[in-house]
Amino acid sequence: MSIEQAEDLAHDEFVFEVFAARCPSRATLEHVTGKWGILALSALNDESYRFNALRRKVDGVSEKMLAATLQALERDGFVHREDHRTNPPIVEYSLTDLGKQTARRLKALLKYVEDIMPSVIGAQVAYDDARGV
Amino acid sequence: MSIEQAEDLAHDEFVFEVFAARCPSRATLEHVTGKWGILALSALNDESYRFNALRRKVDGVSEKMLAATLQALERDGFVHREDHRTNPPIVEYSLTDLGKQTARRLKALLKYVEDIMPSVIGAQVAYDDARGV
Repeated sequence: MSIEQAEDLAHDEFVFEVFAARCPSRATLEHVTGKWGILALSALNDESYRFNALRRKVDGVSEKMLAATLQALERDGFVHREDHRTNPPIVEYSLTDLGKQTARRLKALLKYVEDIMPSVIGAQVAYDDARGV
Repeated sequence: MSIEQAEDLAHDEFVFEVFAARCPSRATLEHVTGKWGILALSALNDESYRFNALRRKVDGVSEKMLAATLQALERDGFVHREDHRTNPPIVEYSLTDLGKQTARRLKALLKYVEDIMPSVIGAQVAYDDARGV
């Protein structure tokens, strides 16, 4: 597909439907809401990061998984990768406008999940109790 | 932990921090934003479903994955599982109040991702073009 064709797509009646397994929106949904994608985008919402600093922030991610996550997010247009071409290399990751817009929504969702955790833990205890766990 | 202890937790100063690998909010985040969790919760936001109907709606999910997803969401207090104790068995899944509140947010996110897909596909084409893919 050319850039012109992609731009045409933006004006077409083509409907993206995330419930359909083959819709390309399914892959993007996984990039932004995947375990590491959601955390990386939320972290980058606050500041730009070099790779290793971001890896420390997103506690538990492997080097390989973070690299794959950032590459998918860069290809989707959420993340900008700036190679300062220095020696030793400095590569900085930041958000594009689309990434910022998306990260704001994800951050609100993270905050929401943190906020409901007391209810969730209460439900888990009740569930386990009822089953004698 | 007892139900009373869990309720105390709700009033404590305990801070949930999703960026920390060991925080329990990390697991819940994965349940609600995981590939199948987000789709199952969004589907259940519109209506209650029997297992097989939900499996058809969430295109591509395996029986095993959907069962595991629903069980995790039930334990977290998002999904209510109603066994009508009939023969043949009728088991219906619906959302709790916490589930509805959560699903509304996820549905808005799905809609958002569908809406930005023309920009995402434009970015993907530009990315691939720049790399001669």
